[in-house]
Amino acid sequence: MTLNIALVSDQIAMDYLRPAFQARFPEARLHRIDTEVQELDALEAIDAVVCWSPPPGLLARMPRLRLVQSVGAGTDHITRDPALPDVPVCRIVDADMAAGMNAYVAWAVVHGQRHMGRYLDNQRRHAWEEAPIVPPGRHRVGIAGLGVLGQSVAHALVAIGYTVRGWSRSPKSNLPAGIEAFHGDAARGDFLAGCDTLVCLLPLTDDTRGILNADLFAQLPPGARLVNAGRGAHLVQNDLIEALDSGQLASAVLDAFVEEPLPPGHPFWPNPRITITPHVATRTEPQTIAQQIHDNLARLRG
Amino acid sequence: MTLNIALVSDQIAMDYLRPAFQARFPEARLHRIDTEVQELDALEAIDAVVCWSPPPGLLARMPRLRLVQSVGAGTDHITRDPALPDVPVCRIVDADMAAGMNAYVAWAVVHGQRHMGRYLDNQRRHAWEEAPIVPPGRHRVGIAGLGVLGQSVAHALVAIGYTVRGWSRSPKSNLPAGIEAFHGDAARGDFLAGCDTLVCLLPLTDDTRGILNADLFAQLPPGARLVNAGRGAHLVQNDLIEALDSGQLASAVLDAFVEEPLPPGHPFWPNPRITITPHVATRTEPQTIAQQIHDNLARLRG
Repeated sequence: MTLNIALVSDQIAMDYLRPAFQARFPEARLHRIDTEVQELDALEAIDAVVCWSPPPGLLARMPRLRLVQSVGAGTDHITRDPALPDVPVCRIVDADMAAGMNAYVAWAVVHGQRHMGRYLDNQRRHAWEEAPIVPPGRHRVGIAGLGVLGQSVAHALVAIGYTVRGWSRSPKSNLPAGIEAFHGDAARGDFLAGCDTLVCLLPLTDDTRGILNADLFAQLPPGARLVNAGRGAHLVQNDLIEALDSGQLASAVLDAFVEEPLPPGHPFWPNPRITITPHVATRTEPQTIAQQIHDNLARLRG
Repeated sequence: MTLNIALVSDQIAMDYLRPAFQARFPEARLHRIDTEVQELDALEAIDAVVCWSPPPGLLARMPRLRLVQSVGAGTDHITRDPALPDVPVCRIVDADMAAGMNAYVAWAVVHGQRHMGRYLDNQRRHAWEEAPIVPPGRHRVGIAGLGVLGQSVAHALVAIGYTVRGWSRSPKSNLPAGIEAFHGDAARGDFLAGCDTLVCLLPLTDDTRGILNADLFAQLPPGARLVNAGRGAHLVQNDLIEALDSGQLASAVLDAFVEEPLPPGHPFWPNPRITITPHVATRTEPQTIAQQIHDNLARLRG
């Protein structure tokens, strides 16, 4: 019987996965519902969904569904669906993903701390102007979220030479060497007071939704910098703009947004203190996703 | 007797050192010859010169000179002077300097490999467009030059997750873990053939002057990227422009130039494939320089 796989997202075009899935599942039928293809007339035939932020209610209309596979390390974009059927939800496990995040955050931290954006702007007007050079060891980078990605990023930043601290909701053991660790609500203020750059790598939960807000920004040192490589919903957008306008924050590098693609006309686009990347901090390769869903389907059958 | 210290450069404004030197040598007289101050009427009184690229012949006109202190890790900008008097030449030894270089090169490598410049350009036109995301482990970064800075950078890039190789003229022991090492002329071609990004951190010598030339570029994989954090004279400028035009090189991040500041009208400024930073990859803090020249003067006295 033909395997029917649906590539589903209400945020991104999923067609980038098609070649890898065709190669890995040559006998399967591939379907799409995403930002480009809005209809799927074979809901009753779908065996497996590969998704990023599936439209709420859609999965409940797939009676044969036996696997919901996230294309990322998170599953909150799936489990937020109040009508999610009782079907296994799997996430991707991928060492390349941590390395990709290391590279992104290293770039984002240095970009702000070393005034690289200013140099790029200066090049446009052919201007040679030095900005202050502060050694990495005298710049404190705080990682909010010490899961697999947070720990990996912390290790990479220590290797570069930054002074690194980390915060998590619950205590963590076996953290990478050289990191000052904080945990829990009581230690949050102490953690934030020592973050010249704050990197958000928290999971998105009811506790962390909107955590990047005016109250938090006020606890950072004046002129601190923000990197949000978590989720768009971590950030209260107007609070960020006000903190940048007031100078409480010096800059922000943002990779995730509540609405993606970030809409034309959004006030983030022209803000000179905001750097926007289109949710590319890290990603798992299509072949890896195809292989993992293949293995997960085999486990469910077995 | 009053100590006379001259801050000397024909390339950069040295005034940034003045506060730290006034604090460390409150009794001394400070003098300048640099891009802003062109005359010094007390050559015969100078005891020590703190310099970056002193004008050739100038030091020979200082009969009391007993120390020539570079403000960086290199001294070639001093020893190129054919009239250099027989006086101790010292360089700065500074762990912060390696960390600063780690940060710069990490930024420069990721900037090219992960298409960050393209995202910044896209933001100017409010465009959300993904570029390919290749995991760091599948991108090979080659470090030419495995001295203190090269080894430090190699270690940081391995920690991020890049595949790192290094080349040096002579064999090196105790290299950081995870690096594929090459040395000597015979291995140069093998090294270059596996550099998706080539980072130049070589010292400037007669052997390495002009080493970044068309012949070398042709040995890199097509579409390779270049980071020059060495010296401007390592690079044959026209060969770079031709390699970028032909697509043999995809991009270059340059921090050092034969003529600094890079002159207005230089063809590098408007080249969309070249990223220019104003020789800020790393630098030693003024207080550290003041302290080290203080210690060096004490050693010469003792």
